[in-house]
Amino acid sequence: MNIIKYPKRSEWSIIVERPHLDVSQLNTTVQSVLEKIKNEGDAAVIEFESKFDHVNLQSLAVSKEEMDEAERLISDKLHHALVLAHHNIAKFHESQKFDGSKIETQPGVTCWQKSVPIQKVGLYIPGGTAPLFSTVLMLATPAKIAGCDEIVLCTPPNREGKVNPAILVAAKIAGVNKIYKAGGVQAIGAMAYGTESVPKVYKIFGPGNQYVMAAKQQVSLHDVAIDMPAGPSEVCVIADETSNPVFVAADLLSQAEHGTDSQVILITTSEDFLYKVNDEVKVQLEQLPRKEIASKALDNSKFVLVKDKEEAMELSNTYAPEHLILSTNDYDELSEKVINAGSVFLGQYACESAGDYASGTNHTLPTHGYALAYNGVNLDSYNRKVTFQHLTKEGVKNIGPAVEIMAENEQLIAHKNAMTVRLQALKNKAE
Amino acid sequence: MNIIKYPKRSEWSIIVERPHLDVSQLNTTVQSVLEKIKNEGDAAVIEFESKFDHVNLQSLAVSKEEMDEAERLISDKLHHALVLAHHNIAKFHESQKFDGSKIETQPGVTCWQKSVPIQKVGLYIPGGTAPLFSTVLMLATPAKIAGCDEIVLCTPPNREGKVNPAILVAAKIAGVNKIYKAGGVQAIGAMAYGTESVPKVYKIFGPGNQYVMAAKQQVSLHDVAIDMPAGPSEVCVIADETSNPVFVAADLLSQAEHGTDSQVILITTSEDFLYKVNDEVKVQLEQLPRKEIASKALDNSKFVLVKDKEEAMELSNTYAPEHLILSTNDYDELSEKVINAGSVFLGQYACESAGDYASGTNHTLPTHGYALAYNGVNLDSYNRKVTFQHLTKEGVKNIGPAVEIMAENEQLIAHKNAMTVRLQALKNKAE
Repeated sequence: MNIIKYPKRSEWSIIVERPHLDVSQLNTTVQSVLEKIKNEGDAAVIEFESKFDHVNLQSLAVSKEEMDEAERLISDKLHHALVLAHHNIAKFHESQKFDGSKIETQPGVTCWQKSVPIQKVGLYIPGGTAPLFSTVLMLATPAKIAGCDEIVLCTPPNREGKVNPAILVAAKIAGVNKIYKAGGVQAIGAMAYGTESVPKVYKIFGPGNQYVMAAKQQVSLHDVAIDMPAGPSEVCVIADETSNPVFVAADLLSQAEHGTDSQVILITTSEDFLYKVNDEVKVQLEQLPRKEIASKALDNSKFVLVKDKEEAMELSNTYAPEHLILSTNDYDELSEKVINAGSVFLGQYACESAGDYASGTNHTLPTHGYALAYNGVNLDSYNRKVTFQHLTKEGVKNIGPAVEIMAENEQLIAHKNAMTVRLQALKNKAE
Repeated sequence: MNIIKYPKRSEWSIIVERPHLDVSQLNTTVQSVLEKIKNEGDAAVIEFESKFDHVNLQSLAVSKEEMDEAERLISDKLHHALVLAHHNIAKFHESQKFDGSKIETQPGVTCWQKSVPIQKVGLYIPGGTAPLFSTVLMLATPAKIAGCDEIVLCTPPNREGKVNPAILVAAKIAGVNKIYKAGGVQAIGAMAYGTESVPKVYKIFGPGNQYVMAAKQQVSLHDVAIDMPAGPSEVCVIADETSNPVFVAADLLSQAEHGTDSQVILITTSEDFLYKVNDEVKVQLEQLPRKEIASKALDNSKFVLVKDKEEAMELSNTYAPEHLILSTNDYDELSEKVINAGSVFLGQYACESAGDYASGTNHTLPTHGYALAYNGVNLDSYNRKVTFQHLTKEGVKNIGPAVEIMAENEQLIAHKNAMTVRLQALKNKAE
């Protein structure tokens, strides 16, 4: 833990610094895998699954039998939890539906936006030790609500060729149509280009390791859209003497256990509170199975003492955290000052885990300072707002001359002419 | 003109094909320019302006005197046109303001989204023969409405070191704070990294040539967000015997004059109409100053005869045009079938020029098939939707157990513990 007391503003740039992430050195490897998937389709996916995931697959699609089996394999308790989480995520994302109203910008000129779902989306769910079934709910639920026709999910199988049953059940609850056994770069390639089994999609969502990130970046240059750039997960907690040190310590640790590169920042106006949290973190850390990971992440974490709340909020806005917990009693006032953050948790009881799993907000959020320019996944992520316009004869008369003069000054005479032929036709009719 | 009658579906992929755009061969040049801007700031920008734009600049910022001079240099007629266009663009984009309502997903669990402007945005306006002042209005007006603090604009000067006056007046009308003389890759680099004069921004908007596109792609991998990927401009017109061949020909030509790589597609159910447009295009083409460019673009254009409107709409949705003109009498019915398009123009009088300049919709739109996954620039492009959540004690009780079981199954025990310490505290209080 690095304890920093009353840093000068000139020192802030060091506090908010992120590890340098450059996946470009992976680009050659990633490119060759993508190229092979593009050219050889399923056969290449199966080959890379054997090489990287040590599994021999006959086919990529998860079968109906495997789906049914998954339902039997998970506990009722977990099933109920998934249904509750799905309900809340669905309720919040449904409330984000957009209905554009028609705007008459001039008499006879009407413009509007209409939300139209992206037809085909691809969701990537990493494998590894912890099966991220919560991410299935987060990515598939809004896709279904948006009305995407085809929701494709790729996730790596284990060495027996099986997908974690909780991932399959979450996919079923959320309404995923098509699930394939493929991980890493080969999964991204399969969804970007399409193979005999895996449909080509128009946008790819989901987390992953550095190879997956590099692959998403590469395919996004030409072939498909992606949800957002990615980096290690992070939390910033703003606390004072009204905050609960046990809760705050637990929140910091929940971030720290993600990975050794996780970012954990506490900003507080109370020195006494800072040391209380510091002690409490040590106590709680001992109980954690992922103690080693968490403690490495904590080595890079920062506990910052600042003079007042104003400064705390400014430092947080400069950092632009993925998760921001305002654990003070005056969270309402502070929340008005949030400029740069992915998701904000207000008060004692809104822990990050609530939003990670079940409150209803999305947990796919901008990390690594990307909150300066990006927001997390929401219903908009699965839609495009297409603009429409209609002009009456009166509309043409009202804006036609302005269009003519502007087009003429941009030396685009055919643009001008498209308006002139209409104005002329109206004039001829009137005569 | 390529006339294609009743193509089979298997031939559609050829009709909707776009020229292969690969800017990666420019990457080495672009990277070295970006690198130099990053390291040397203003001095490098001035050097590249001398090299590429053949101008010797003392300073990059446009002065107050230059702004005042610009006002004197443009005609009253153009000034009025800019004000009218700005009014309509502002009215439409103001109507896109978002006010997120609070949603109680479970008793005691409240979630909402809040729209927060991106603090610093950069707008790039290309130079060249035609000064794109209309793009200044399209990019700066929503930035101002969103409430972005810093709106930076870069545009290349002429050989005398002057910026086109209409660009400066449009910038002033739309509320741009800071205008700099810089073009091409050096402008993108200056806004991505910041120099002594040019502030670093968080998102870059605007069109440009292949070098600008490549530069935007490169900086978007690490440093800033960008509006969207780009390609040549394109229009698809759907017409029948109720359409006006003179109007349709003018619309096709207004697209064709953009560049030799512009894409122009007419889809019609009437063979008679197709030939009428074909004749009319030849007549109108003769009058155009950019006749040579337009006629090269027309060489690659396609006039497609299909059996019915259903098929016309399906072909258009497969093509995913930037601009779609439904010039038939039954445009209302057809508009319901639009899935993939950037901006849609309905009826006889809604020509593309209307939206390019003055109706109020944005003209920065997804080209090159990107309409499958992207929409054009709108107010959302300048905002992030930050999520907020608040939990009461009741809220913790309602979702806490589900969070615990899900976290446990994802083997993230610190995540579970963040909820457990809160549930425990509530239990202790109750006892």
